[in-house]
Amino acid sequence: MNPYHKPESLVKLNPRGLVPTLQYDNKPLYESTVICEFLEEAYPDHTPHLLPKDPYDRARTRIWTDFMTTRIIPAFHRFLQFQPMSDNEGLRQVHEEFVAKLKEFAKEMDREGPFFLGLEPSLVDFVVAPWVMRLWVFDYYKGGSGIPTEGEGGGDQNIWARWRKWVNAVENRKSIRETISDREHYLKIYQRYADNTAMSELAKATRQGRGVP
Amino acid sequence: MNPYHKPESLVKLNPRGLVPTLQYDNKPLYESTVICEFLEEAYPDHTPHLLPKDPYDRARTRIWTDFMTTRIIPAFHRFLQFQPMSDNEGLRQVHEEFVAKLKEFAKEMDREGPFFLGLEPSLVDFVVAPWVMRLWVFDYYKGGSGIPTEGEGGGDQNIWARWRKWVNAVENRKSIRETISDREHYLKIYQRYADNTAMSELAKATRQGRGVP
Repeated sequence: MNPYHKPESLVKLNPRGLVPTLQYDNKPLYESTVICEFLEEAYPDHTPHLLPKDPYDRARTRIWTDFMTTRIIPAFHRFLQFQPMSDNEGLRQVHEEFVAKLKEFAKEMDREGPFFLGLEPSLVDFVVAPWVMRLWVFDYYKGGSGIPTEGEGGGDQNIWARWRKWVNAVENRKSIRETISDREHYLKIYQRYADNTAMSELAKATRQGRGVP
Repeated sequence: MNPYHKPESLVKLNPRGLVPTLQYDNKPLYESTVICEFLEEAYPDHTPHLLPKDPYDRARTRIWTDFMTTRIIPAFHRFLQFQPMSDNEGLRQVHEEFVAKLKEFAKEMDREGPFFLGLEPSLVDFVVAPWVMRLWVFDYYKGGSGIPTEGEGGGDQNIWARWRKWVNAVENRKSIRETISDREHYLKIYQRYADNTAMSELAKATRQGRGVP
């Protein structure tokens, strides 16, 4: 569906008109993370499990999933939508804030990985995946993401090496590769974000300085 | 503890320095809602249960708990911290936005109640409770909360009657009554919020137009 021309069938299920919206047993469900936890609980035999078994580990997974929604995505969009591009100091600030959030996230990863909690992917990886797959937009529109590549990163080299190991695991996960669209499809949409003229609810919230709607 | 002079012991557990922070088995947990779900899972025999059994009902409970954190609390604070008080039109806007969010929430309540999901309180009631107990601050500092009282509310009378039934149930819950501080204790703290000079992370985030930190 086209989220800029919301069909009646969507708004009827979800008055907020946001995607994803799920219809289950003729009843609506929305909010990405809520839907993920629902799928885990409604299909408890499906693996890999989105959450680990131990209550403490489950809570920790939720903390860092929430960190994605409340910290990383807003920082991603403040950086992406930053204008005017001639304001070097302003751009540097939103840029550094974004990279700092990614570093905070990378520091919490299981030491070996490759996924956040270890060998198997979980809720936190899947929630971040769509954004990881779009990191190229910063190279394309904003002069680089500033995420240290191999050999860079100074005293934080190990953290960024772990980050790259994780990105690599996410990017090569079959389910993620097969559900991502081609880059060409994103170019026109992201140009509007980069120019800060996009009219999605997320773009508008970012302009107001707010978080994920 | 005094959140304006964070003790080292808190920051060591939770780098964000926010309350509540829980120490469990020498490991830290934070984020109010995450802690609540953790307690439910770590003590599964304790009643009342914070979440219902059915996966769909659990998801719905999470949607409206999240609505509290991402919609109601930010609207509460935009209204409370609004300045200058001479800007009637601005005040009216943040005021109406807040009341509209409460109405949206009230519409989703179980018809009979008295709690959000029915006879027993759940996660969503406990997450909203501290804010319900502080609604008097709008009468005290902002010329009234504008929430319709009995006989007011026009075409929405039934919604507001349900709201009042719910507020009454929350306010009279023993665990809530016994863990709330006296009003005198809040006056000095909330004066700073009402003047928009408070320096808590939540107050600062609100000034920046952002959500709950």
